[in-house]
Amino acid sequence: MSNSSGKRDSGDSKLFDFESYRNKKVQMINRGLSRLIPKSGVRPATLHQAMRYSLFAGGKRIRPILCLAAAEACGGRPERALHAACAVECIHTYSLIHDDLPAMDNDDMRRGKPTNHKVYGEGVAVLAGDALLTIAFESAAKSCPGKRYGCSDLIREIAEAGGSRKLIGGQVADLEAEGKPVTAAQLKYIHESKTSALLCCSVRLGGMLADCSPARLKALTDFGTNVGLAFQVIDDILDVTQSSQKLGKTAGKDAAVEKATYPVVHGLEKSRATARRLTKKAFKALEIFEGKALALQALAEYLLDRDC
Amino acid sequence: MSNSSGKRDSGDSKLFDFESYRNKKVQMINRGLSRLIPKSGVRPATLHQAMRYSLFAGGKRIRPILCLAAAEACGGRPERALHAACAVECIHTYSLIHDDLPAMDNDDMRRGKPTNHKVYGEGVAVLAGDALLTIAFESAAKSCPGKRYGCSDLIREIAEAGGSRKLIGGQVADLEAEGKPVTAAQLKYIHESKTSALLCCSVRLGGMLADCSPARLKALTDFGTNVGLAFQVIDDILDVTQSSQKLGKTAGKDAAVEKATYPVVHGLEKSRATARRLTKKAFKALEIFEGKALALQALAEYLLDRDC
Repeated sequence: MSNSSGKRDSGDSKLFDFESYRNKKVQMINRGLSRLIPKSGVRPATLHQAMRYSLFAGGKRIRPILCLAAAEACGGRPERALHAACAVECIHTYSLIHDDLPAMDNDDMRRGKPTNHKVYGEGVAVLAGDALLTIAFESAAKSCPGKRYGCSDLIREIAEAGGSRKLIGGQVADLEAEGKPVTAAQLKYIHESKTSALLCCSVRLGGMLADCSPARLKALTDFGTNVGLAFQVIDDILDVTQSSQKLGKTAGKDAAVEKATYPVVHGLEKSRATARRLTKKAFKALEIFEGKALALQALAEYLLDRDC
Repeated sequence: MSNSSGKRDSGDSKLFDFESYRNKKVQMINRGLSRLIPKSGVRPATLHQAMRYSLFAGGKRIRPILCLAAAEACGGRPERALHAACAVECIHTYSLIHDDLPAMDNDDMRRGKPTNHKVYGEGVAVLAGDALLTIAFESAAKSCPGKRYGCSDLIREIAEAGGSRKLIGGQVADLEAEGKPVTAAQLKYIHESKTSALLCCSVRLGGMLADCSPARLKALTDFGTNVGLAFQVIDDILDVTQSSQKLGKTAGKDAAVEKATYPVVHGLEKSRATARRLTKKAFKALEIFEGKALALQALAEYLLDRDC
């Protein structure tokens, strides 16, 4: 939450160098992802190039950082959560590749670059997405679970968040809602499924790999759900208020295809207030960590204040 | 291996009522799949309908039966392998939905019915495939592994067989080979990756869930690899020799798009001889089971003799 000069006004976050933290974690995640995905020369080369093209297109790595930060908040080493963190980033990237296809959102630009199917063709884009989705589970299965949560818990966590009732279901509901009036409840359902579930899963995985208590897992769930909802509200706002150049993708797209968004249903000002309220609720959920969740708090602030 | 009257002439298989075995296993698998996939009414209804449409379109359930039969050959109960068996069928079905898309093989018919995208549109077909791929891992994670092989072994087994170097890589190589001359080695690579890997994975999962010895897992791997190669050779032959009505999909499609196939590279007669030779090698691999793998043997015979 910024003041007028753009400086953070939260007491705790002054103690925490978020930029440095983020840079270190992004490097760690990028190394993990690069080890995970076969090199571009491995047969079939086109497929591995297409996978790497989207995975290393400049994503902000929000989900995997959330995963690592949650593990740390629970007293775990981030290295133990790295395979799971890479898994959620692969799931996120595959979902973007498939959502961008002409049969879905039909987007030509993503992160300031041509979308996967514009470069490699639709067939390879579908398959590159499939391969990222598949390797996500391979990565998660490499994790060394602790005493409380086993491999099957991690896999089911990801499969549910990325499955037909959450991530994929939300995209279907989103497509079906285009051009139709939606209620606030329908919009919340779409946001929860399409965006919040995977963000929430990311923090939960981090906690699980740090063998967290049920109470802390519950707190991480509350944090992740609220941050996830706030994230999508902000995304909707940015689509209206920012340029395509700033966003690296086609701005104003939601309105053009009459997508169900927060600003459409609630207006811009109320949407901003909602994002702030949700972020406050997320902060509240972190109290159980007694000051050991500064990175998660700083991440939530960053996501609220971002302009792209 | 049939004689001229169509009756089996193998000594062992006379002792084994394959039709009855197959029917029982298909029922068991169908019940498992129906429990796994959310009902058609569960939100978003279109997505769950699309998933069920392809999953219950009359597939022969070859891969899951192989999985259950391998578990039994190793002295395990088939029920213990059911979640894994359902997983491989979901992987197989998703791969068909995606392969049939206009951007890939562009097929209108599958198993005598319109393909998924012809009924639900391309967007939902992509997402239904994604959801089947995701739920496959959820299903596999429900398995109760034994002492030798844990959940992570099962997940990695499936992810590798279904991943960028095997199933998906084979489809990319297949697409890239269309209209070009291919060598026998390239063709073998495509068949091994696109078809044999998942069939081999199916029998290996069954063995792993029956806590089989390393020697038996090796035997199952040899069996699965050879049956898988024979399966694809027969598939290529049937595309040339059978009608669309019989196959339930467009016959002669391979030649029309100049696909790399066995009959094109080796001729029909040599292809038939190859399928027989591979099946014999598969039989040979079963010797370690000392007569306890009759179902696997009968399955291999059935796959060799099938006419659709």
